[in-house]
Amino acid sequence: MWHVFNEYGGYCYCDHCADGFRNWLQERYTTLETLNKVWNTGFWGHTFYDWEEIVPPNALSEEWGVDNTNFQGISLDYRRFMSNSLLDCYKLEYNAIKKHTPDLPVTTNLMGLYKELDYFKWAKHLDVVSWDNYPSLNTPISLTAMTHDLMRGLKQGQPFMLMEQTPSQQNWQPYNSLKRPGVMKLWSYQAVAHGGDTVLFFQLRRSVGACEKYHGAVIEHVGHEHTRVFRECAELGSELQKLSDSLLDTRIKARVAIVFDWENRWAIELSSGPTVALKYVDEVHKYYDALFKQNIQADLIGTDTDLSDYDIVIAPVLYMVKKGYAKRVEDFVRSGGTFLTTFFSGIVNENDIVSLGGYPGELREVLGIWAEEIDALFPDQSNQIVLTETWGALSGEYQCGLLCDLIHSEGAEIKAVYGSDFYQGMPALTVNKFGAGQAWYVATSPEPSFLQGFLANLCKEKGITAPIPPVPGVEISQRTNENETYLFILNHNDQPVNVVLGSLKGTDLIVGQPVTNTVTLSAKGVLILSIS
Amino acid sequence: MWHVFNEYGGYCYCDHCADGFRNWLQERYTTLETLNKVWNTGFWGHTFYDWEEIVPPNALSEEWGVDNTNFQGISLDYRRFMSNSLLDCYKLEYNAIKKHTPDLPVTTNLMGLYKELDYFKWAKHLDVVSWDNYPSLNTPISLTAMTHDLMRGLKQGQPFMLMEQTPSQQNWQPYNSLKRPGVMKLWSYQAVAHGGDTVLFFQLRRSVGACEKYHGAVIEHVGHEHTRVFRECAELGSELQKLSDSLLDTRIKARVAIVFDWENRWAIELSSGPTVALKYVDEVHKYYDALFKQNIQADLIGTDTDLSDYDIVIAPVLYMVKKGYAKRVEDFVRSGGTFLTTFFSGIVNENDIVSLGGYPGELREVLGIWAEEIDALFPDQSNQIVLTETWGALSGEYQCGLLCDLIHSEGAEIKAVYGSDFYQGMPALTVNKFGAGQAWYVATSPEPSFLQGFLANLCKEKGITAPIPPVPGVEISQRTNENETYLFILNHNDQPVNVVLGSLKGTDLIVGQPVTNTVTLSAKGVLILSIS
Amino acid sequence: MWHVFNEYGGYCYCDHCADGFRNWLQERYTTLETLNKVWNTGFWGHTFYDWEEIVPPNALSEEWGVDNTNFQGISLDYRRFMSNSLLDCYKLEYNAIKKHTPDLPVTTNLMGLYKELDYFKWAKHLDVVSWDNYPSLNTPISLTAMTHDLMRGLKQGQPFMLMEQTPSQQNWQPYNSLKRPGVMKLWSYQAVAHGGDTVLFFQLRRSVGACEKYHGAVIEHVGHEHTRVFRECAELGSELQKLSDSLLDTRIKARVAIVFDWENRWAIELSSGPTVALKYVDEVHKYYDALFKQNIQADLIGTDTDLSDYDIVIAPVLYMVKKGYAKRVEDFVRSGGTFLTTFFSGIVNENDIVSLGGYPGELREVLGIWAEEIDALFPDQSNQIVLTETWGALSGEYQCGLLCDLIHSEGAEIKAVYGSDFYQGMPALTVNKFGAGQAWYVATSPEPSFLQGFLANLCKEKGITAPIPPVPGVEISQRTNENETYLFILNHNDQPVNVVLGSLKGTDLIVGQPVTNTVTLSAKGVLILSIS
Repeated sequence: MWHVFNEYGGYCYCDHCADGFRNWLQERYTTLETLNKVWNTGFWGHTFYDWEEIVPPNALSEEWGVDNTNFQGISLDYRRFMSNSLLDCYKLEYNAIKKHTPDLPVTTNLMGLYKELDYFKWAKHLDVVSWDNYPSLNTPISLTAMTHDLMRGLKQGQPFMLMEQTPSQQNWQPYNSLKRPGVMKLWSYQAVAHGGDTVLFFQLRRSVGACEKYHGAVIEHVGHEHTRVFRECAELGSELQKLSDSLLDTRIKARVAIVFDWENRWAIELSSGPTVALKYVDEVHKYYDALFKQNIQADLIGTDTDLSDYDIVIAPVLYMVKKGYAKRVEDFVRSGGTFLTTFFSGIVNENDIVSLGGYPGELREVLGIWAEEIDALFPDQSNQIVLTETWGALSGEYQCGLLCDLIHSEGAEIKAVYGSDFYQGMPALTVNKFGAGQAWYVATSPEPSFLQGFLANLCKEKGITAPIPPVPGVEISQRTNENETYLFILNHNDQPVNVVLGSLKGTDLIVGQPVTNTVTLSAKGVLILSIS
Repeated sequence: MWHVFNEYGGYCYCDHCADGFRNWLQERYTTLETLNKVWNTGFWGHTFYDWEEIVPPNALSEEWGVDNTNFQGISLDYRRFMSNSLLDCYKLEYNAIKKHTPDLPVTTNLMGLYKELDYFKWAKHLDVVSWDNYPSLNTPISLTAMTHDLMRGLKQGQPFMLMEQTPSQQNWQPYNSLKRPGVMKLWSYQAVAHGGDTVLFFQLRRSVGACEKYHGAVIEHVGHEHTRVFRECAELGSELQKLSDSLLDTRIKARVAIVFDWENRWAIELSSGPTVALKYVDEVHKYYDALFKQNIQADLIGTDTDLSDYDIVIAPVLYMVKKGYAKRVEDFVRSGGTFLTTFFSGIVNENDIVSLGGYPGELREVLGIWAEEIDALFPDQSNQIVLTETWGALSGEYQCGLLCDLIHSEGAEIKAVYGSDFYQGMPALTVNKFGAGQAWYVATSPEPSFLQGFLANLCKEKGITAPIPPVPGVEISQRTNENETYLFILNHNDQPVNVVLGSLKGTDLIVGQPVTNTVTLSAKGVLILSIS
Repeated sequence: MWHVFNEYGGYCYCDHCADGFRNWLQERYTTLETLNKVWNTGFWGHTFYDWEEIVPPNALSEEWGVDNTNFQGISLDYRRFMSNSLLDCYKLEYNAIKKHTPDLPVTTNLMGLYKELDYFKWAKHLDVVSWDNYPSLNTPISLTAMTHDLMRGLKQGQPFMLMEQTPSQQNWQPYNSLKRPGVMKLWSYQAVAHGGDTVLFFQLRRSVGACEKYHGAVIEHVGHEHTRVFRECAELGSELQKLSDSLLDTRIKARVAIVFDWENRWAIELSSGPTVALKYVDEVHKYYDALFKQNIQADLIGTDTDLSDYDIVIAPVLYMVKKGYAKRVEDFVRSGGTFLTTFFSGIVNENDIVSLGGYPGELREVLGIWAEEIDALFPDQSNQIVLTETWGALSGEYQCGLLCDLIHSEGAEIKAVYGSDFYQGMPALTVNKFGAGQAWYVATSPEPSFLQGFLANLCKEKGITAPIPPVPGVEISQRTNENETYLFILNHNDQPVNVVLGSLKGTDLIVGQPVTNTVTLSAKGVLILSIS
C-alpha cells in the first residue's frame, strides 16, 4: 500500500508506478488514439503523442488534494490500476500458498467501505470474503448493517468471515470509547445476523510497543483473564458453542437489492461539479436506512450481479452507466421489476465520458424523463417534495436538498413536484410504466421520513413484508436454509424493550426454550429464534 | 502558470525559476550592496555575498504556507518577478501574432481580482482589456460591480470585453447553483453598465469529458436549443442586437476614484503583524460598497493614474507609498481635491522598508496627524467611533474594529473619537485642510452605516449627486458619449420594484418607448434609459 | 533549527541527519538486537537487520502529520536525538566563547514550554537560564506564572534572566494587541516575582525591514522617546533602580512540586490512543492553576530533581515512568510525603514499552490500585466525581471528562466514585497509605473547582498556607533570602482592588513607606512588600 499515497499529497509518482501504469494502459487501450479519445485529451490541449508522456496523476501533473483532477478519465483509470496492482500482489501470494495447501481456503481481510479498492473485483479471487469491522461509538447501526450486507454481496450472498473486531476499544479513533457491557456481543451477533459465519477478534494480546498497543485485546496488558472484557468474550464463546453449526451456511433471502459500485463512487467524487457535498456512500446509506428502519432486508449488489432474483432494485446516484447495464435495467423492468434511481444518474460511461443527447442518457427511455438542468443547493438551502396526491404512507410535503434535477416527463407519471424556487411545480418524483414493470426517478435528495414512506409503498406494492413490526432501536434479520428460518432480534437500545412476535412461534436458539407472543429483550439483548 | 505554485507549498524552486529570478534582480538592483539594503538582509544575518546564494523564497528558504515570509522584500520581489515573467510570456505570444495580423487587436483573459498578477502592468500590453466574470450565488453584487470597474480602470476607462461568463452554472465552485431566470441577462447588462462593450460566454458547448464538462454552456449536453438556458441566451442576443452599437465606446464619468494597487496588496498580506485579519480587497470593497449603495459611481485606479480628473480620491490602507506618490497626493489636495486614507497607511516604501520618523510616513504632513501605535483587535472585540458633533448624515456612535490607530492631531480637525478602551477620546476620524483641499484619515475599520454616511457627506460637500435616489437592491450606472447619456437601472431583487425617475425623462433603449415619472421593473429586470 | 521540520511535513530526512541519527543510536544501544527490542520492531515485521536500514521517522517511513507514528519508540528517540543535536551545537558555541572569556556567563534564550527541546537536559550546560516571555492578550495569567516557575526549576531554583519580552505588541501573533497601560510593568514584575533577576526587552529599536519590523520596541519607528511605550519602559527602569539589588538572588521556598517532563510529554502526545484530546501541558496547568488560585507557590521540577525537599509532589499524567523513578516515589511517600498522580500513569518505560502486569505498572503498589480499563470520552461527554463523604472543601459532585480510568482499590481508600455510565460507583479518587505518607490517584480529568478544593485539602493537611487570602485576579509570590522576605502582590484586574494584609507588616519596596492592614492596588498595580 505504500505506493498509493505519497509525499505529493496524492498518488505515487515513482518510476515503478509510472511504468506499471503505462503498461496497464497499453494493455487496456492498445493505441494512443483510443487513449486520447477515452480521456478526451483534446480538452486543454493535453493530447498524448507518446506513451512516455503519460505519468500518474498527482500534484505535479493532473490531480491534487482530495479528489481534484483536471482529467477524470486519467484519475479514474489510475484508481483502477492501483486497485488492480494490489490485487495482483494478493494473487501472487494466493498462488504461492495454494501450491502447498491447495485445500485450505485463502482470504485477506477487507475493510468494508474502504474507498480505494474495488472489492467486487477482489472477491472473485478470495475463497471466502473476510473483513474487519471497526465501528465507532457514533457510527449509525444501519451503516454497520449495510457494510455487512455489502461484504456478503461481494460473493453473491455466500457467508463471510468476521475476521477482525476489537473486544472493546480501538486505538486509532480520535476518542477511543470502551465498548459498553453487552455491546461487543450484540455487534458480534449483528455480524452473524447479516451473514457472518465466524466471529473473530483482533487481538488476543495487546503488544507491548508500537502503534497498536492500546488496541483492545482479549487478554489485556494485565495478562490474566479476570477482566470484564475477557469475561464478555468467554461468555460469547460459550453461547456460540451452544449455537453449534446450526447457522452455518444459512442464507439471507432479500427481495430488494441496492446497487453499490466502487467505480461509480470514484467517478462521482472525482467530478468537478455540481457539488462537493455529494458523497456516494451517504446517498446509498439513506436508501438502505429507510428499509432497515422497516425491518426489510436488502442485498448490496455489484453491477455484475443478476437482477432477476429481485423484485425491487435501487441504484442511488447511478452516475456511471457501464456498457450493457442500461439494457439489463430495461430487461429487468420489462419483466416486471421495480427499478429506482435518483438525480445525477445516467450521465457518463465507464470512462467518465458524457452520454450525449440529454440526461439521464441511456436510462432516459426506461425512466421516461429528461433532466434539463441540475441545481446544486448550498448547505443551508432546501426545497420541498410535494405529493400531487396522498399515496399510501406519503402525503403532503417533505424537505429535500443537495441536488435538484429539473426534469420533464416524457411519459412518466408525476407523483410529486418541487415546492419552491423557480422550478416549483416541476416533477420531483416520477414513475414510468415500462413493460410489466416500473422505473422510478427521485430527482433530489429527500429527508429520511420521505424515503421511509416511499419505500414502504414500493414494498407494499410488491408484497414484501417485515417478519415483525419495527420497534425503534431494534434490528431484525433472518437467515434460512432448506429446513429452518432463524430470526435475529437485536436490541441496540440502552433500555429493555418488548417485541411483539404476533403469530410467530419459535425456539430461543441459545437457551433452547420456546418463545411466543411478546418477548422482552434486555438492554443490548439478543434473541435468535429458530422458526420451523 | 505551472511554475507559480509547486510541491513545496509555495513558489517554484526549479533551476530555471531561480536563474530567472537572479537575472531579474541583477537587472533591477545592479549590485549586491543595493540588494542587501533594499531587502534589509542585515536582519538575522542574511547578507548575500554572491548572487548564486539567492534562491526563490519558499519553505526551503524564507517563505512558507500562505503569505508567511521572513523577508517581505524578497517575497515581494518574487511576486513582481513572477507577474513579470508571465507577462513576458504573453508578450512573446503577442508579438508572434502581431507579425501576421498587425491590425487585429490582441488580448488575453484576465481574472478580475486574481492576486498573483499585477494587471495594471499587464494592461499596458493589451490592445483591449478582457476578463472572465464568475460570481457565485453569494458574491455581493457590489463586489462584481467593483471588479468590472477595476477592469475598466486598467486602461483608464477604455471599455473592456466581457470575455467569459457562464450561461448558467459553474463547475469549480463548491455548490454550483444555476443562475436563476433573468440573472444571466441581468449580470450581462451589469457588465455593460460598468463599461463592457461585449458580452461573451464560456462556453458554446459542454465538452464530453475532463474537468469542465459540467461548466454551463449555451448548448448543453442534450445538444439542442430547446432549453431554458439557450432561450435566455437567445433573448439576450436579440436585445443586444436591438441596442445595436449605441452604447459602444461610451464612457463612465466618475468624480470619485478608489486606488487599487496589487503591490500594496501583496505587501499588506505578506506583513508579519499587526493582524492576520486584514484583507486588502475587503477594505477597498467596504468603501466601494458605501458609494454603490448611494448610486455614486467610482473609478478604480492604479498608482500611475492621474488624480487631477477627480474630486475625491479614496486610498484604503495605502500601506505602501511608492516613490513620488506622496507628492502627487499633496498636489491633488493642494489643488482642492479631497483625499481619504485609512489606518495602517504611509508605512513603507516599494521595498517594504519603513519610512522612519513616525507613521503615516510621507503622508504625515498632508494628513496632519501622527499615528503613535496600532492596536489589533481580536475578532470578537470592537471599539466605537463617536462623532464629536452631528455632521450631516453622521451622528452619535458607530462600531469599528480590526485595527485601531492611536493618532495625535498635528493640525487636523478631529471629527470623531474612540468610544472605549484606554484610547477612548483619541481621534478616530480627522480632516486636515491642506492648500485648497482636505485630507481625511479614518483610523480604524468602521461598520458600513458609518461609511455610507461619511461618504454621503463628502460627496455632498463636492456636489456629487446620484442620478436617482437609491432603492435597496437596485443598481444604477451611467455611460455617456458626446451626445447621449445612458442610464442603467438593474433590479437585483427577487421582487418587482418601483423606481422614481423624478425629473428624468428618457427612452427605453430596448423597447424604444419613452419613460417618465415612476417605472416598475420586474424581478431581475433591466431598464436602459437613453437620456437626451 | 532548519533541519527539524522540513518539506515532508515532519522531521528531516537528509543524509546528514540520517547518519547522525544512526550514530547516536549505535552509541545508545550498541547492538541491533537491543534496538529491535526497545523499539518492539517485531510488530508489523519491522525488524532491522542493518543499521543502514534505519532512517529518520517521517512520512516516507514511520511518522506523518503532527505526532502520528507507527513506532512510538523510534519517534521518541528521534526527538531525543534532535534535542540533543541542537544542544551539541550550542555546546560547541559555548566552548568557543569560554575559551576567550572564561569568566563571563554564557546562556541562550529558551522559549518556555517549547515542545521540541528537553530544557532540563539543556539547563545543565547554561551558566544561567534565560528565556523569552511572549504571552498573548488571552494567555491565562497562571500559565505565564507556571512557565516562569518551570524556567526557574530548570536549575533547581536558581534565579533566571527574563531575556526577551516586548515593550508592547508582538508581530507573529494572529492579532497583535497592544499591551495596555501598566501591563508591561505588571508582567515584568511577574517575572521577578517568580525568580527573574533581570528584566530585558526585545528590542531597543524596530528594524526598518523584514519580518520583525512590527515587533514592539523601546524606541519605535518614530525614532524618539515621546511615546507611551518609551515612558512606561523608562518608568519601570526608574523603579528597578530604586529596588537596587535587594531582590537579587533571593529564592522561592515552595513546599509543593509539580513534575514536568519533556520526554513524557513527547510519549503522551505520540501515543495512538486512547484520545487525541489529551495535551500534557493542559493537564499540568490544571493542577498548577488550582494552587495558583489559592496563593500557594509551587516548583516545577524535572524527573532528576530530588523529591525530599517537598511535602507534596504532583505528577499529572505520569505516563512514562523512567528507570528508578517508581522507587524514588516510593521512598518519598514512605518517608511521609504526599504524592499525587492521575489517569493514564505508570503505563510505559523510557522506550514507550508497556510495563506488563496491570496499570499503573510500577506505581501500582504505592498507589494501591489497579486500572483495568481506560475510557475515552467524546468532547461533548462528561461523567461526575461524587465524594463518598464531605471532606474539607469538597462535597457532593463535580464534572469530569477526557479519560476515565476504571480502577479497583487494592488497599487504597476510596474518596470519590464515578456518578454515571456503566462504571458508576467505581473509584474516581483514591488515597493509599504507604509508609508514613500518602499516594493519591485522580482517575479522570476534573473541573477546576474540584481541583481547587482537593489541593486546598492536601495543603491544609500538610500545614501549607498562603501568605494572604486569595483575591480574584490578584497574584501573590514570595522571594526570600536569609534576612528578608519579599511579598509580591500583582493586580491583574482592570479595576483597583483592596487586599487585606491581616497581621502582615511590611515596607513598600518601591516607595519606601510602611504598609499595614488593608492596601489598595490600582488597576494593573504592583506592590512589593519587604517583610522583616
